[in-house]
Amino acid sequence: MVSISSRATFDWGDPAAFADRAASMEASPIREFLKLLGQPGIVSFAGGIPDPQLFPLDAIARSAAGIMADPARRADVLQYAASEGYAPLREWIAGYMTRLGVPCAIDNIVITSGSQQALDLLGKLFLDSGDAVVTTAPTYLGALQAFNVYEPTYATVTFDDGPRSHPAIDHVVPDYPIPPAIAYVVPEFANPSGETLPLDRREGLLDLLAELGIPVIEDAAYQALRFEGDPLPSLLALDIRRTGHIDRSRVIYTGTFSKTIAPGLRVGWVCTSRELVQAIVLVRQAADLHGATLDQAIAYDVVSEMFSEQVGRLIPVYRERRDVMLDALSRSMPPEVTWTRPDGGMFIWLTLPEGLDSEALLRDSIETERIIFVPGRPFFPDGSGERHIRLNYTRSDEPVIVDGIARLARLIARHMRERASRAEPRRPSLAGAAS
Amino acid sequence: MVSISSRATFDWGDPAAFADRAASMEASPIREFLKLLGQPGIVSFAGGIPDPQLFPLDAIARSAAGIMADPARRADVLQYAASEGYAPLREWIAGYMTRLGVPCAIDNIVITSGSQQALDLLGKLFLDSGDAVVTTAPTYLGALQAFNVYEPTYATVTFDDGPRSHPAIDHVVPDYPIPPAIAYVVPEFANPSGETLPLDRREGLLDLLAELGIPVIEDAAYQALRFEGDPLPSLLALDIRRTGHIDRSRVIYTGTFSKTIAPGLRVGWVCTSRELVQAIVLVRQAADLHGATLDQAIAYDVVSEMFSEQVGRLIPVYRERRDVMLDALSRSMPPEVTWTRPDGGMFIWLTLPEGLDSEALLRDSIETERIIFVPGRPFFPDGSGERHIRLNYTRSDEPVIVDGIARLARLIARHMRERASRAEPRRPSLAGAAS
Repeated sequence: MVSISSRATFDWGDPAAFADRAASMEASPIREFLKLLGQPGIVSFAGGIPDPQLFPLDAIARSAAGIMADPARRADVLQYAASEGYAPLREWIAGYMTRLGVPCAIDNIVITSGSQQALDLLGKLFLDSGDAVVTTAPTYLGALQAFNVYEPTYATVTFDDGPRSHPAIDHVVPDYPIPPAIAYVVPEFANPSGETLPLDRREGLLDLLAELGIPVIEDAAYQALRFEGDPLPSLLALDIRRTGHIDRSRVIYTGTFSKTIAPGLRVGWVCTSRELVQAIVLVRQAADLHGATLDQAIAYDVVSEMFSEQVGRLIPVYRERRDVMLDALSRSMPPEVTWTRPDGGMFIWLTLPEGLDSEALLRDSIETERIIFVPGRPFFPDGSGERHIRLNYTRSDEPVIVDGIARLARLIARHMRERASRAEPRRPSLAGAAS
Repeated sequence: MVSISSRATFDWGDPAAFADRAASMEASPIREFLKLLGQPGIVSFAGGIPDPQLFPLDAIARSAAGIMADPARRADVLQYAASEGYAPLREWIAGYMTRLGVPCAIDNIVITSGSQQALDLLGKLFLDSGDAVVTTAPTYLGALQAFNVYEPTYATVTFDDGPRSHPAIDHVVPDYPIPPAIAYVVPEFANPSGETLPLDRREGLLDLLAELGIPVIEDAAYQALRFEGDPLPSLLALDIRRTGHIDRSRVIYTGTFSKTIAPGLRVGWVCTSRELVQAIVLVRQAADLHGATLDQAIAYDVVSEMFSEQVGRLIPVYRERRDVMLDALSRSMPPEVTWTRPDGGMFIWLTLPEGLDSEALLRDSIETERIIFVPGRPFFPDGSGERHIRLNYTRSDEPVIVDGIARLARLIARHMRERASRAEPRRPSLAGAAS
């Protein structure tokens, strides 16, 4: 017993206790900032967070009451359920996708706990350790977190220079040593760049994927939040035109109600071939059996009653906030700072002048201005991106945006001056010595 | 374009499209049986399914209405939330665990989507491909499904012979070639065996784990459903006595409200060291950000109002059904069939005579008797267990249990006769030929 008692305690700080993949797991910087959100006086341009004032509260409360008042529905939402998800909601989504140019049926839809879970389940299904994921750089940091668990490598494309450019998809994976396993893109109002892949680039991407022979995850989290311009066909819609049927398409479309209804419900979906839906159901069954049914039933009630109306409420408010932020940026930012102009979604992506570090800026910003944003690095698979900042405009009122951007601009200008004085610290004194 | 269009369609039936781990994924036989549940005339002894008549419906409906009527709580449940889970519920669980002999605080608790998600997240954190998991055989098939995704091996112990015996923990992993990474046990009213690990075996298991230097997952899904006898201290409670503090204990306790409140809410938890809780939070963040908050808030309201009362309602009903099933088995089963006598939980575990195949029996049972149960194989890491049957007694009324067991017994007797006539088909005719 003496020999055992000396070994009785367990050292949870020893990395050897964990699987190798645990070493790659890092706390999301966004999540860490979210902890600051509750503090008084904090202005947040971090997070892809909807304005809670715009949640369809009445419809949600009415739905919850209705479900609880109906013995059959109440029993349904409280008992174990199918891993595929709540059938009426799957039916509704199949109809919605069909209206978006994606003819499909209920068997092409599986519900997930937000689209984050879809990314995890797809990483599990497709990624062996060392496999390459093709993606843009920057890309959604939550996708990198989900995939990193499966220890992949990344084959990335960088953005062209300039504020209005688009990802240079054409020259993706030049001579990449590992055959890629899957691609991941956010074609619409991308997280974090706010940019939208134009139609010709979408077709080019599908050509490339056909050459590579790999599937692609189309993350459509922001698709419904288009402020202006004509809707573009999704990659899935375009690929169905090529292949004739969703069951033969390589595109795996992920959607979510987190940005349009309410994120706390955790209701997202995957729309893809029936065969892949069945594989996702298997892997979800092992992961958590199924999602909370009450939330899916509420989501069903709300979207079937008023999805278009709800999206119609969000768009003018978010568009106005985007405009206010773009105006404030134009008025107050130093000319060396550039940014994207999104046609929808939740984000503007800033590029700082050479030599500035967005993480140092953030630390300073939290301390002196009480403003938070997400620095660029976590969006890049290779950890570059230190000159970038992601700004969210959907969660703050107009006066907060105007004031916050002005203060952020002053802070950036100060960092630029400090950088300039560090870069050329001795010229005046040297000149003085020479004279 | 011609060369591309020939490659445009994607073949989802090609296993090479998926990661290696996908090959190990199989549909749960339980899940397949659940699809039969809705059919008229089906008697189900399959599934660990609570009786929906016993859900605390009024408390749940009252809670949902209260949350929706309170602007602050409503906003809380609809917005993004912390991956740790709903804080009031974590506080309540910390108090509950403390009352169970596990002194701990909110930082020792993380909410999961049922305990199934805990098993997936722990597999992700602890299992490299090829690592060994120490477990009993049989063990919970959902744990095997969750772990199999991470491609482990298993070091198993078998049960001693006889219906009242206990797992022979003492001689686990004899000369096992791979150092195990983690252990998994269901100490109370085990799934599928219904058996409970006595106190001396619990201490022996902790000794062994200290020798091996590995952590252990204590699956306590059924712990609250004790019908008789004094409660035993959990492995975690025992190990805290050894180590002095939960943060130094190797035991990872998983609990769930699926068996006591309602499974559709998908609310479970892990109680363990703060350091491991933080690691689980990281891995959950990448997996699905957080669980649906409304369900956690409802679970909080219900358990803080009436957890003991609710468990007190379940126990006499389930105990009576266990007794009715045990009586029916005694009255009707052939003497060659043996079974366990659980002190709580949801399952009785049958052992059929040599030569019988529980899967053939199930096929016959579905066709001729419309009775479903779970055959033994999926509970064994090595796929043995063909002579076993798991019976659930919590979901059926007493008359259904009496009638169903009588019919199942007749079917088993018929299979025994058929087996005997196949095994010795020619003895009479040979005798006739010799005479």
